[in-house]
Amino acid sequence: MIRVTIWNEFRHEKKEPVRSVYPEGLHRAIAAGIAASDLEIRCVALDDPDQGLPDEVLNTTDVLVWWGHCAHKAVADELVDRVQQRVLSGMGLIVLHSGHFSKVFQRMMGTSCSLRWRQVGERERIWTVAPNHPVAQGLPESFALPHEEMYGERFDVPDDGKIVFLSWFEGGDVFRSGLAYERGLGRIFYFAPGHETFPTYYDGNVLRVIANAVRWAAPRGPFVVPECVKTPPAEAMRETPEQR
Amino acid sequence: MIRVTIWNEFRHEKKEPVRSVYPEGLHRAIAAGIAASDLEIRCVALDDPDQGLPDEVLNTTDVLVWWGHCAHKAVADELVDRVQQRVLSGMGLIVLHSGHFSKVFQRMMGTSCSLRWRQVGERERIWTVAPNHPVAQGLPESFALPHEEMYGERFDVPDDGKIVFLSWFEGGDVFRSGLAYERGLGRIFYFAPGHETFPTYYDGNVLRVIANAVRWAAPRGPFVVPECVKTPPAEAMRETPEQR
Amino acid sequence: MIRVTIWNEFRHEKKEPVRSVYPEGLHRAIAAGIAASDLEIRCVALDDPDQGLPDEVLNTTDVLVWWGHCAHKAVADELVDRVQQRVLSGMGLIVLHSGHFSKVFQRMMGTSCSLRWRQVGERERIWTVAPNHPVAQGLPESFALPHEEMYGERFDVPDDGKIVFLSWFEGGDVFRSGLAYERGLGRIFYFAPGHETFPTYYDGNVLRVIANAVRWAAPRGPFVVPECVKTPPAEAMRETPEQR
Amino acid sequence: MIRVTIWNEFRHEKKEPVRSVYPEGLHRAIAAGIAASDLEIRCVALDDPDQGLPDEVLNTTDVLVWWGHCAHKAVADELVDRVQQRVLSGMGLIVLHSGHFSKVFQRMMGTSCSLRWRQVGERERIWTVAPNHPVAQGLPESFALPHEEMYGERFDVPDDGKIVFLSWFEGGDVFRSGLAYERGLGRIFYFAPGHETFPTYYDGNVLRVIANAVRWAAPRGPFVVPECVKTPPAEAMRETPEQR
Repeated sequence: MIRVTIWNEFRHEKKEPVRSVYPEGLHRAIAAGIAASDLEIRCVALDDPDQGLPDEVLNTTDVLVWWGHCAHKAVADELVDRVQQRVLSGMGLIVLHSGHFSKVFQRMMGTSCSLRWRQVGERERIWTVAPNHPVAQGLPESFALPHEEMYGERFDVPDDGKIVFLSWFEGGDVFRSGLAYERGLGRIFYFAPGHETFPTYYDGNVLRVIANAVRWAAPRGPFVVPECVKTPPAEAMRETPEQR
Repeated sequence: MIRVTIWNEFRHEKKEPVRSVYPEGLHRAIAAGIAASDLEIRCVALDDPDQGLPDEVLNTTDVLVWWGHCAHKAVADELVDRVQQRVLSGMGLIVLHSGHFSKVFQRMMGTSCSLRWRQVGERERIWTVAPNHPVAQGLPESFALPHEEMYGERFDVPDDGKIVFLSWFEGGDVFRSGLAYERGLGRIFYFAPGHETFPTYYDGNVLRVIANAVRWAAPRGPFVVPECVKTPPAEAMRETPEQR
Repeated sequence: MIRVTIWNEFRHEKKEPVRSVYPEGLHRAIAAGIAASDLEIRCVALDDPDQGLPDEVLNTTDVLVWWGHCAHKAVADELVDRVQQRVLSGMGLIVLHSGHFSKVFQRMMGTSCSLRWRQVGERERIWTVAPNHPVAQGLPESFALPHEEMYGERFDVPDDGKIVFLSWFEGGDVFRSGLAYERGLGRIFYFAPGHETFPTYYDGNVLRVIANAVRWAAPRGPFVVPECVKTPPAEAMRETPEQR
Repeated sequence: MIRVTIWNEFRHEKKEPVRSVYPEGLHRAIAAGIAASDLEIRCVALDDPDQGLPDEVLNTTDVLVWWGHCAHKAVADELVDRVQQRVLSGMGLIVLHSGHFSKVFQRMMGTSCSLRWRQVGERERIWTVAPNHPVAQGLPESFALPHEEMYGERFDVPDDGKIVFLSWFEGGDVFRSGLAYERGLGRIFYFAPGHETFPTYYDGNVLRVIANAVRWAAPRGPFVVPECVKTPPAEAMRETPEQR
């Protein structure tokens, strides 16, 4: 059983026009959309106590899904520290859409995670460029979303992201829209689609990507906090002072 | 002319036994060792005003060399923010030895940067595994340091570090001791040797690595702060609502 | 059920001193050592009809294990073509020890795959540097082989091999001894230990690495021959000649 | 002085409609377009003696530019062997457009190098995603070619290609159109635009990319043939049989 926690800023959805699209919040739409017998899913929000992630929640989370947009700055640095530590110890992290600019993602990447954007609701086509990757299982060669926010290159992230999906936008842009990273003992997947005014998180292909990513990012072994460790020699040392 | 700033914690050298090895501080030993007509070198220290890196210094630095050990926590988070921003905008960063555990390097990597270590002064042999890399120019196939602190795997850093050097230690350990990264518009080189009680920074090969790394990491163009930018379509949008 | 074919040159073992170490051939020692209920294992040899890999064998193989040494040149180019095609279509390939210099591995890498070597039976210590990788499951932080052939850097292979294991040798060398690649739809693992005069393929840790590698490299979906495909537009083309 | 040899299949240009576009052959158009005082450029063709690359030409070439399309199979395997050896020894290789399917590029990559394609002369927009890379120097954020052949994902090449350019096509496709590799001591750049019926090799941005790539790929040191080398121990061996 994979313990999944979906963290949502959950502010846009309290007003129109977003409320009509995701009346219960987009975290609950995602939870409903990926529900399965091997996933134990909780939904939490920024305005919950401890910003939704007290130790008793975070430390019982195998995979954390993150959606944030207008309130990145409100997330406590102390929470970012704890999320980072948990990822490095083995937790999976799925960062969605505008979460590219969250403190959590920036911390894990070490870069600005900036990009070019445009919100006119244009057409996006998503290409599967790593068809054998676990996150791409069951996805077609390409699929389209009729209306999405454009996120375009250059995307300021490290080079070691395995490119699973590349996006085409009607207005002429391209984007590395599905990227798989490893950091410490944890796995991180960034997936770009998901603007709050569009019904993207009801799309079957999008939900399949998120569900695949959750299973791919689930920890493979016990959580281990990475630490500097003093260690004795594994091999016998010589006494050859003349060589020194 | 490359403007190099060597930042040193500069606390160990105020007492024996380190004072005898680096009477003026190891930053000044490095500065003397890499001095050349194309390098304009400044030395600064943690206990200088603004921790040695006020804006007027940082913003006129092309390549920053960083050595810290016992006082990582004393470095202000605000300074780490500024260094990160400057690297992402194009500044080179050379991180030496125990600087692997500095706030600055951890910030740029996104990982714990932890490793295994042992301080018994054992023999280290450094292998050039990327002989064609600019940082390896003029270095032999391998060279030895008679006494160094052991830094061993697993080194918790991202996978996209180009491995320029790999180290062998007498006590049975191995280490990715020379790693080249790109982050934002900046270049980062980590080089492991350099414990404060050994004359490592007087070694010709070590100095050549540092000098090469400085030149490799020097910015190639103007400094540009990475930002999210709203952008108009580059290509004409269609009016094909039936497709949407 | 994973269909595994172990291909062995099987010439050294017909004479002493190798015959005493692997009386039935090292392929059969490996087969016995990794035997499990989810693996269906065949052993074939260079001197079998069609060099052991007629279409009916190769095309029913999910993972091919390859050991060769003195007879690399005897392997038919036509067989190398077929193995490459099968790997690109999804087959796993595990290349062992001196197989680094086989035509098959050279073909898949595009490089010379050359290295430095020494055969004096020195001690090798193997470090797990990617503890979370499937091939490292159940392996200790490090383990030693009392006598092995030394394979040392520089190893002329592409940079995208995920380093799972790094080796230390008593004589002062280091080596990227466990490397995981993806090529086409196939996965390739290179593992360095296994000189024919030593009982390396009876070692529990070595066998666990090979068994893990076989399961990691097993195909995830149907075999698909990669081909250039002519394709219609996925999106409606504009008629905007003035833009052209 | 960088010694550049431009190899062209040079068959399309002998008939219309290509002859009108490149009357002297596209190799000569490229040569004229990148001509500079630091480049010594020769043009050779498939139908020249020794297919244009006898040893005296190849062995005095620092960077080889390759364009082929309809006659890939006519290139002698023996020539492919020699080109590979020269690249691994330090020569730069620039592969253009349909050269993705040449024997030479396939040999260096180890993969099929297959892709999806469509020849309707649609609009292509090329995005610079690694603005700091030497091959991107002086190129704009993006630029368009009014008519090009579509090359689309999935492109079957290894993952370690540094993505310098990504292309957008009017018909809905995306492509990693500028990829930088290292193989052996050599550097390889693949650049996708350049269908023979379009005046692509007269475009200032395209020519700048090719000129940059030539300079980036120029060898940094002496040519060295990669070979397996028997080597003595660099460190003194112990006599500690009880450990063995």
